[in-house]
Amino acid sequence: MNSQKKLEQFIQHGYKDYLPNVSIDCTIFGYHDRKLKVLLLNWKTPEGWSLPGGRVKRNESLQLSASRILSERTGLEEIFLNQFHTFGDSVFRQQRFKHTKALSKFNVDFGEDNWLLDRTLSIGFYALVDYSLVNPQPDLFTEECRWWDIYDVPGLLFDHNEMIEKALATLRHQMYYEPIGYNLLPEKFTLPEIHDLYETILEKTLDRRNFPKKLISLGIIKKLKERKNIGPHRAPFLYRFDKRNYDKALKDGLSLSF
Amino acid sequence: MNSQKKLEQFIQHGYKDYLPNVSIDCTIFGYHDRKLKVLLLNWKTPEGWSLPGGRVKRNESLQLSASRILSERTGLEEIFLNQFHTFGDSVFRQQRFKHTKALSKFNVDFGEDNWLLDRTLSIGFYALVDYSLVNPQPDLFTEECRWWDIYDVPGLLFDHNEMIEKALATLRHQMYYEPIGYNLLPEKFTLPEIHDLYETILEKTLDRRNFPKKLISLGIIKKLKERKNIGPHRAPFLYRFDKRNYDKALKDGLSLSF
Repeated sequence: MNSQKKLEQFIQHGYKDYLPNVSIDCTIFGYHDRKLKVLLLNWKTPEGWSLPGGRVKRNESLQLSASRILSERTGLEEIFLNQFHTFGDSVFRQQRFKHTKALSKFNVDFGEDNWLLDRTLSIGFYALVDYSLVNPQPDLFTEECRWWDIYDVPGLLFDHNEMIEKALATLRHQMYYEPIGYNLLPEKFTLPEIHDLYETILEKTLDRRNFPKKLISLGIIKKLKERKNIGPHRAPFLYRFDKRNYDKALKDGLSLSF
Repeated sequence: MNSQKKLEQFIQHGYKDYLPNVSIDCTIFGYHDRKLKVLLLNWKTPEGWSLPGGRVKRNESLQLSASRILSERTGLEEIFLNQFHTFGDSVFRQQRFKHTKALSKFNVDFGEDNWLLDRTLSIGFYALVDYSLVNPQPDLFTEECRWWDIYDVPGLLFDHNEMIEKALATLRHQMYYEPIGYNLLPEKFTLPEIHDLYETILEKTLDRRNFPKKLISLGIIKKLKERKNIGPHRAPFLYRFDKRNYDKALKDGLSLSF
């Protein structure tokens, strides 16, 4: 099936395979080398950028649905997505999509009462990945998929700016009590590497001494005997996460306050 | 309209007023005098207990929908409900409701492909209220609504045991970083009162000295000059929450670890 045929099939008959009135939108944060980005898609019509999203198959779990959407847009597999909030209150979600003119550009007959134009709740997921590993792919409705610096995000379609804001707040909050940046660091890392990661995501300056001291005193990271050679006379010690201590600390009511 | 007529109307034509494939379920925790309870409904058929729940009106925000359900079951108004998770992965939610026999007891013709029997995602909300103020009310599908001790909850319909577990974990987590028990204490309270509240909900023993010391040193509660007379020679000082300091502390990365 070519992509125009696929689009037509989805618009006209998709409700047989997908749940109506519900979508999933993914805020995919990308981190690399002290930069935080977010993955956005440029719509063919209506014009504008949005988060990657999709519909839930009738026989698919929500988690699987979100993973499928992430993998279709990024090529990444087995990335953990956190469900964080279901959106349904914004005025954009109360009313039928008003872009009838814009929709005509798809060259597909939507018919009356099309399932895609009814009020849609959106279940928000977020993930944090290494953006240098990603090859972004647009979907049927969009013509471009790329990373935007988190501080340059344009006005988005629907309520997607609100979604990013809430996803970012959740991510920052979780940095304090879950090893959320875990998969962004090599198994063995230096203190400046974990320090940079936390500073970039939390967007605040963390004390060079107290930040690692806290992590070490809670037993969350462990100093190894190995060092990393990064230059002449520069060989900082390597560290690794202690997942078991992290989990124990969490249970007892862990809290990092930097 | 009598209640049988209302039930028939809802089952046969409800999809015109409510979104299909989505419901809201509320885990309503009740606290009073060192006891933690949860509000449950006993179904006429299929037999069993469940959380209070309902459907989202087509023109209603999710928050309003949850408040309406809470208020219909408890008579309480203006209680803040936290959305915490959307459930859709359990096998109970994958398949059509299988209790055709049980449903016949409602004496309503469901017809083929009834909207209520299709796969339903559920948006979970939780609230914490003073159960001594509540007058529980069953709904159209149920014959009894009452409080259960949190440690005596029976096997529930659908995936509602899982919902309570996740709601409780969320509540406990939030106790560490939001003044969630706020509305359960009088405006001015004694240290034993707030201590009892936190101990009961967190289900752990908190140090009589360190617990309030931490709250005071963070500026979250403030000692007043007044005392409460609770008996001869017993007049402990009163305290109140300092919401502004709480909010500030939160922003800076507050964390209570008792």
